[in-house]
Amino acid sequence: MTDLVEALLAGKHSALARVITKIENRSPGYREIVSDLYRHTGHADVIGVTGSPGAGKSTLVDKVAAAYRDRGLTVGVIAIDPSSPFSGGAVLGDRIRMASNAGDMDVFFRSMSARGSLGGLSTATTDAVTALDAFGKDVVIVETVGAGQNEVDIVRTADTVAVLVPPGSGDDVQMLKAGILEIGDIFVVNKADLDGADRTVQQLREMLQNSGRRRGAGHHGPQDSQQSDDLGADASDERERWSPPIVETVANRGEGVESFIEVLSDHGDFLDRTGKRERQTRQRVAAEIQTLLREDVNGMIADELDRHGGIDGYVDSVVARETDPYTVVDEVLEPLRAYLDDTEKTP
Amino acid sequence: MTDLVEALLAGKHSALARVITKIENRSPGYREIVSDLYRHTGHADVIGVTGSPGAGKSTLVDKVAAAYRDRGLTVGVIAIDPSSPFSGGAVLGDRIRMASNAGDMDVFFRSMSARGSLGGLSTATTDAVTALDAFGKDVVIVETVGAGQNEVDIVRTADTVAVLVPPGSGDDVQMLKAGILEIGDIFVVNKADLDGADRTVQQLREMLQNSGRRRGAGHHGPQDSQQSDDLGADASDERERWSPPIVETVANRGEGVESFIEVLSDHGDFLDRTGKRERQTRQRVAAEIQTLLREDVNGMIADELDRHGGIDGYVDSVVARETDPYTVVDEVLEPLRAYLDDTEKTP
Repeated sequence: MTDLVEALLAGKHSALARVITKIENRSPGYREIVSDLYRHTGHADVIGVTGSPGAGKSTLVDKVAAAYRDRGLTVGVIAIDPSSPFSGGAVLGDRIRMASNAGDMDVFFRSMSARGSLGGLSTATTDAVTALDAFGKDVVIVETVGAGQNEVDIVRTADTVAVLVPPGSGDDVQMLKAGILEIGDIFVVNKADLDGADRTVQQLREMLQNSGRRRGAGHHGPQDSQQSDDLGADASDERERWSPPIVETVANRGEGVESFIEVLSDHGDFLDRTGKRERQTRQRVAAEIQTLLREDVNGMIADELDRHGGIDGYVDSVVARETDPYTVVDEVLEPLRAYLDDTEKTP
Repeated sequence: MTDLVEALLAGKHSALARVITKIENRSPGYREIVSDLYRHTGHADVIGVTGSPGAGKSTLVDKVAAAYRDRGLTVGVIAIDPSSPFSGGAVLGDRIRMASNAGDMDVFFRSMSARGSLGGLSTATTDAVTALDAFGKDVVIVETVGAGQNEVDIVRTADTVAVLVPPGSGDDVQMLKAGILEIGDIFVVNKADLDGADRTVQQLREMLQNSGRRRGAGHHGPQDSQQSDDLGADASDERERWSPPIVETVANRGEGVESFIEVLSDHGDFLDRTGKRERQTRQRVAAEIQTLLREDVNGMIADELDRHGGIDGYVDSVVARETDPYTVVDEVLEPLRAYLDDTEKTP
């Protein structure tokens, strides 16, 4: 074990920050560090928060983090930059947030950027959560913008996924159709004091009720905060189902934050009670192994292409229609395939 | 060469349909078919059309296809289902569109679904374009919803990418920031008769002017339809730059369709004149080879995991914290790595 890992496990925030930087940059030695840290994990509650830009994610996350801290829990926040895969820009406003948390090490805040590779970002996020968990943070919040593949990454990292929906525009609720509806365990209509919030809650409830996941949509209020026992056709392996509640918040005034934390806690209880936490963990580990395999093998492929003099010669031949991509790939992979077939025969 | 390939090359639409079905389903033999077809390609103009749901893509594409047909050109349309990666649902309305084109084989319309795998969809789209190109279609239009990774897939398939923007909501223009701005060669504000269209054009123009690509945004009108000779700082290898024009259309009334086709033609001329078409083709072929390599190697990894008794045993050990994902991956890939290292040493 390296000194850096020891310092992290001893509770040094500077070591935690350096480890996450190594993870983000894929610096030499980061794999060994994550391997060493892994056996110290499994204690943190991991919460994913996603939603379109302007939904108020950062404000809500800050308030939630503060509320956990007030309960004596330590919190780590990882905010994923919503950079375009093409530009790699940074988020305005993060500096301000970081400043507001400066010195408050019970809430460790860290932003990470996409750096052009969504796959790499997913792995880096998972590894950063590992670091925060091993460090001993009670709650880890992964905050990311709701734009495509990122939400799926969150699913793989978080125990509970909260989707923020800004009120007002029907378009925003429509946007949810494109995949995000399925991944939310909790929906938050933030800025609930704005015009149109009631309508957004109503639309959201209808969409959840009609959605392919066949889960009812509860509304979190004094009257009906209990889970419905909505049993879908495919619920045979899971008697108790989770009906994603809709929580209304006005994060900048702190309103609804306690309700949100209650619902997060309810969902955690649900995960434990039904054994779903274990199933989710297993799925996550399987996905993680497969992602890492893919990433490593992609590196091997790049090396193998280099050995064949790079890809340019192949591109020339394909452009000249002397060959085609499938034939090229068969040629490059032939020796590998033959080797693996041999290995199979000799156990 | 199979009978099916011969029938396709002989101009039989039924063979074309069957080939695309094989491509979509990855049926046995599809690789050989695409390989055989590949050397007959390189003649079609490939146009990508993307935009958020409700932007009016299908209406515009239908009108554009009809306009090309009126000019004596044959057209193939591939519409990608905007299914959620989780649900795999189908698009309402496609049946209606298919019926409207039924029997009109100069416009061959085909929808393809995501089937849960975005990577696979990219390859299947590329292969379907190969089939349409080899068949002899003069113009191939790939239509897809603007949601995340799909646009990037289009970039790799199309010579020219048109991004549709619905008027009215500033949010929609904001959404463009998340990656789609960079990939548009042409922007279309459809439903230009609606309130807010002028403002959307204005916002779009400002965003294009301020965007990271540092290209000016021309507005396609009688006064200024010429390319600007906006030279960015990184333009050393490409003296003439393309300033994405903004075209206004009212597709359901056919208005602006001719302007759009003119601009598509302008962009085609630009690609030829500057040598950019060749560079784009080379990039596309390189990306295609790498995607296929990845997909094939992923299959090999799955087999290799099976040889190790499947992933479940590894998941057990990781969940028990006896090992960790990185260590597992090193174990699984060790023989492969050893083989590649050996090969490297003995040239």
